Amino acid sequence: MSKHYGRVTVPTDVDMVEEKKKIIERWGADAIRDCDGTDMPQELKKLPVKIYSTYYTTRKDNSWARANPDEIQQVYLMTEFYTAMEDESLRIPIMKHLYREQLKPNTIHDIKRWWEVIDRTTGEVVTPEHWSYEEETMEVVISRPDRYHDYTVSFLAFIMWDPVHMYNYLTNRWEDVEHQITYDVRQPKTQEYVLAKLKRYLKENPDTDVVRFTTFFHQFTLVFDEYAREKFVDWFGYSASVSPYILEQFEKEAGYPFRPEYIIDQGYHNNTFRVPSKEFKDFQAFQQREVSRLVKVIVDICHEHQKEAMMFLGDHWIGTEPFGEYFPQAGLDAVVGSVGNGTTLRLISDIPGVKYTEGRFLPYFFPDVFYEGGDPVREAKVNWVTARRAILRKPVDRIGYGGYLKLALQFPEFIEYVEQVCEEFRRLYDNMGGQTPYNHFKVGILNAWGKVRSWGTHMVAHAINYKQTYSYAGILEALSGMPFDVDFISFDDVIADSDRLKSCDVIINAGDAYTAPSGGEYWGNPAVIRAVKEYVAEGGGFLGIGEPSAYQREGRFFALAGVLGVDREMGFSLSSDKYNWEEHTHFITEDCTREIDFGESIRNVYALPGATVLCFRDKEVRMAVNSFGKGRSVYINGLPYSYETSRLLYRAIFWAAQKEEAMKKWYSSNYSIEVNYYPATRKYCLVNNTFEEQITVFYDGNGKDREIVLKENEIQWHDFS
Amino acid sequence: MSKHYGRVTVPTDVDMVEEKKKIIERWGADAIRDCDGTDMPQELKKLPVKIYSTYYTTRKDNSWARANPDEIQQVYLMTEFYTAMEDESLRIPIMKHLYREQLKPNTIHDIKRWWEVIDRTTGEVVTPEHWSYEEETMEVVISRPDRYHDYTVSFLAFIMWDPVHMYNYLTNRWEDVEHQITYDVRQPKTQEYVLAKLKRYLKENPDTDVVRFTTFFHQFTLVFDEYAREKFVDWFGYSASVSPYILEQFEKEAGYPFRPEYIIDQGYHNNTFRVPSKEFKDFQAFQQREVSRLVKVIVDICHEHQKEAMMFLGDHWIGTEPFGEYFPQAGLDAVVGSVGNGTTLRLISDIPGVKYTEGRFLPYFFPDVFYEGGDPVREAKVNWVTARRAILRKPVDRIGYGGYLKLALQFPEFIEYVEQVCEEFRRLYDNMGGQTPYNHFKVGILNAWGKVRSWGTHMVAHAINYKQTYSYAGILEALSGMPFDVDFISFDDVIADSDRLKSCDVIINAGDAYTAPSGGEYWGNPAVIRAVKEYVAEGGGFLGIGEPSAYQREGRFFALAGVLGVDREMGFSLSSDKYNWEEHTHFITEDCTREIDFGESIRNVYALPGATVLCFRDKEVRMAVNSFGKGRSVYINGLPYSYETSRLLYRAIFWAAQKEEAMKKWYSSNYSIEVNYYPATRKYCLVNNTFEEQITVFYDGNGKDREIVLKENEIQWHDFS
Repeated sequence: MSKHYGRVTVPTDVDMVEEKKKIIERWGADAIRDCDGTDMPQELKKLPVKIYSTYYTTRKDNSWARANPDEIQQVYLMTEFYTAMEDESLRIPIMKHLYREQLKPNTIHDIKRWWEVIDRTTGEVVTPEHWSYEEETMEVVISRPDRYHDYTVSFLAFIMWDPVHMYNYLTNRWEDVEHQITYDVRQPKTQEYVLAKLKRYLKENPDTDVVRFTTFFHQFTLVFDEYAREKFVDWFGYSASVSPYILEQFEKEAGYPFRPEYIIDQGYHNNTFRVPSKEFKDFQAFQQREVSRLVKVIVDICHEHQKEAMMFLGDHWIGTEPFGEYFPQAGLDAVVGSVGNGTTLRLISDIPGVKYTEGRFLPYFFPDVFYEGGDPVREAKVNWVTARRAILRKPVDRIGYGGYLKLALQFPEFIEYVEQVCEEFRRLYDNMGGQTPYNHFKVGILNAWGKVRSWGTHMVAHAINYKQTYSYAGILEALSGMPFDVDFISFDDVIADSDRLKSCDVIINAGDAYTAPSGGEYWGNPAVIRAVKEYVAEGGGFLGIGEPSAYQREGRFFALAGVLGVDREMGFSLSSDKYNWEEHTHFITEDCTREIDFGESIRNVYALPGATVLCFRDKEVRMAVNSFGKGRSVYINGLPYSYETSRLLYRAIFWAAQKEEAMKKWYSSNYSIEVNYYPATRKYCLVNNTFEEQITVFYDGNGKDREIVLKENEIQWHDFS
Repeated sequence: MSKHYGRVTVPTDVDMVEEKKKIIERWGADAIRDCDGTDMPQELKKLPVKIYSTYYTTRKDNSWARANPDEIQQVYLMTEFYTAMEDESLRIPIMKHLYREQLKPNTIHDIKRWWEVIDRTTGEVVTPEHWSYEEETMEVVISRPDRYHDYTVSFLAFIMWDPVHMYNYLTNRWEDVEHQITYDVRQPKTQEYVLAKLKRYLKENPDTDVVRFTTFFHQFTLVFDEYAREKFVDWFGYSASVSPYILEQFEKEAGYPFRPEYIIDQGYHNNTFRVPSKEFKDFQAFQQREVSRLVKVIVDICHEHQKEAMMFLGDHWIGTEPFGEYFPQAGLDAVVGSVGNGTTLRLISDIPGVKYTEGRFLPYFFPDVFYEGGDPVREAKVNWVTARRAILRKPVDRIGYGGYLKLALQFPEFIEYVEQVCEEFRRLYDNMGGQTPYNHFKVGILNAWGKVRSWGTHMVAHAINYKQTYSYAGILEALSGMPFDVDFISFDDVIADSDRLKSCDVIINAGDAYTAPSGGEYWGNPAVIRAVKEYVAEGGGFLGIGEPSAYQREGRFFALAGVLGVDREMGFSLSSDKYNWEEHTHFITEDCTREIDFGESIRNVYALPGATVLCFRDKEVRMAVNSFGKGRSVYINGLPYSYETSRLLYRAIFWAAQKEEAMKKWYSSNYSIEVNYYPATRKYCLVNNTFEEQITVFYDGNGKDREIVLKENEIQWHDFS
């Protein structure tokens, strides 16, 4: 084998073995893997490549699940709101709008303890004596409701069809495939069974080098409606990680009684946009400790059998929390995850405490892309070029693909393109030299989650843009490929250590009012406000995007109005005249060539006297800068990702950090080109993110400039001398 | 004099007496008035017309003011926010950004009692021992501030230049006119002096028939900045109605200690958009009682001298509250006010408890409109046609003009147009027969103020549109000319009597989240929620506009989400899929000819399953309808005033009231034409609100239709037989 070999995993299945061997050679693959619903042919197992075997701890064993119905996985669900239109009893059909083949109410355990009926008009719990459950109609009956009050029922349901299996089943239009039930490895009978089965499996599969766990114990929250449509999805959600068995343990550890509402959270299910409650943070920490402890047991078993343990970042990954405190203790060898863009690449590659990480690139070899007339090359190019920016900052150690290789074989241009990608990846990986690339300085993201949600603060479903998130997600996407050290800091971190922010040159707070990314009630805490102001006053830079520090209180909507130089008119201060409406040219906007795209705009922002407005539209400030003490702040209305807005952010960060004069080092005048430098190898690269040829003035580490031309998508390597 | 005579007041001044006599005759005026800075010539006083004499109770007597500096009017002011950047003392220049010729800090009274220094980062009051005031620098010095906390100073200042006098001075570019100081008639020395002076004046002016008080005691809040620009304006504001003398009385009545913050209100000064606090409601009620008591004394003096007492609705009108509980007790004969549009017309004509009302129409005869090249006729036409809609529902009893008649004399077309208006007004007044016009049914506006802010709920400065208000003010403007009985209901009314809503066929709740027009914290009150739901469930109609019932709580942003069928995505429920995005044709939108103008749109509204979406744009619901029990609801994103949106509202009200089949009575197919019927005289009119000829299909009270053509601006009278 040549030097250009390795760091690539390809999926395989039973047929077309010869063709697949050729692909393995062309792509320089050093690992092969199976896939949900596929088996590995013996002939391939004999190749000099590592064998990944997908292993499901929680499903693919319906006979076990059926024999132990009490240990089937469960999920906390909340019904819709039902109004008591009469004084008489109110009947709530708890399974209405849910997919009945997926979910089954748990009546095995004491429903009066584990279910909760809440009067949502008052927020009060209905005492268990005042409601009952009719099994045959699947209705909760509230005997004496308050008329015209709204009621919800929180209840536990068994997951009778694994949501990912269901998703794959629907996407691939499978037929006659038995619905896979998920069982809970955390519970005693199942745990014993699963561990024994794993040992047996490892013994029986000597060819396997890497056990690719898909995944461990708890599925992220994914619920389907009566039409089998997605009803609720939270890629970070813990609502399906519960059972009376687990909750009783939690109760003991927490030292206070458990309530379903701690999980249900008014129906919001503690999603990433909710400022987390104390109880949810306690529960999350408990789950992390218990999950990592049990993962460790499994990893140890793999190691005893001389196999590596790899975790798939997705599906049943809940509780592992790779950026959490307890993850390294699990001792996993590797993490593999799906790469949707730069942000999700960093969500994998930044994971600490594993030997290597692997990115599974798109497109997945599924018939939704690989059909006659489909354009998988285009999708692969966009995926690669989008993720490459982030790889150049912090690479995954391996790349790979998933799905059915035989589908891909029908697209020779695709095979050809992936071959190039594999070569390009191996070269850049070598050139980076295994060290941290050059960073100009450090940027901190301040929000209610901090480290545990690194790169995940604006995500609902994995890598999917939402109208309400893309104007903020753009910041992370831009940062994922920028030469800054990026740190994720929680308000709790700041409360615990008021100097926590001072390791950063610039702090970013970005999000909608009252959400976790923005911070909500934390901005009512004088300790937080003071720490941030002190940080800026002493020379720090602050970037507020959207509704930073928003919390209506004491005459301000933005708690940091005095720092930002802007506030939002919420209708209370219309009587006060506002005179600061003059736009100024500025260092930050120097590269803007057209009307700036601020995405979904936050309305009615106005500048305080003294602030410098950079952009306003329709009598609303879109961007302004201010100074506070020795520091500087920048307010931006929103920042969807594009090369142009990315440059705007880049300049805003340098300006806020008061390092404008240092910006033109490792710099490209053309914002479609990015530059990275690697001190370990003294190599640097220019990378063309567009599908056109680009010309740029490049500035090296000494600020020396020269013109460079790059072909479409080109990455150009040079030595720094 | 002919039949066509009367109900008209013209302003006069000393010169060009003959010309003015002609105008009085042409316009059929039966009253003449003087104006700020003018005197009435003897020759005019002898005409067979009533003489109005403008009388200023609170100014035009600087010698008295100077001799009694402790009884000069005062205003509560709050400084900007000042951050303690050092641990050392913080100096706050209290007069910075204020116009020093207008305001002078009150250091006569105990500043430690009447001023307040607040840490706005914590909301705590700084104990008086920890701050002092330096008279020479006009700075409050806080001795031991918390570093990086924000501080404000609330202080009392004397009003050394009456704000309206200052406004007139600036607008008319007066020179060498002494700044008029305002003194406080509520205080003992001044009260005695003013009452004696009034008696003297009445004796010395036997020709005066009507004393036109401009106004009584307290100016609405109007403060100027250091450049003499408007800094703060609230036409309903009470902040300039204070003095230690008054506040001590209030404290005794209320039974709890007074705090400056009750007036300052975080710098928002309890403006109309603030949900009023208990303390502010107490203070407002106290002021109303005291003001009406003292007005009564003044009215009695006028009556003793056989003169009528007329109040100008504006300037020093604060505390009179014509829609308040105590106003009728004052016994005023008349109210005169400035007419900016239909809403402000109703703000005058709906006032109960007076013998007659008078509207002062625009343009004011001031040089800002009556200059060479100006177009006063256009302004007069727009003003008249806009207000006429409202007059046809509830007329003022008289119309009039203000300013300097000699300026108007230079515009013969203007004189001619006003002559027509006077004729038209007298005819319509006669045709209405002094009775209530035909109303289809009753519409209630539900907000935090209720009756006391009738027609004033979305107003900042008088009749001026703000970006943040016009999308709601349009509803009142539309209603001001519609054949509905309009009722203003407060949440307190509903809490006191849960059946209060049931007198209405349709209830409207319209405004931004957390503001008084919407209701804010009242929507956290189960009694309010229940009463509204009961009202709708039993068959009532509900119109929510903007952010109706908004109050983030228990899984909902709109407390009435279940009634409205819509909620607003605040970032917490992104995990829940939303599938209701199909637009439906509907009765309400039948007359829409173009893209509906919703004004400033409320973002991220989505429909719940079951609701019927009538319009969405950019994945945001703009309009939807729903049913709840036996009732119906309509959600509209916003409603700026136009003939087309007015029709949309008209249809929405009929649909919500479930009276669609009754709509085509006294109805015009063309929405630029409105129809009114007067049972007292069995006359009806069609009125063309546009500046073009219009054709319409008219439906009479029996639903009988015929085609009618109307000339531009025409009002056409018919007998109903």
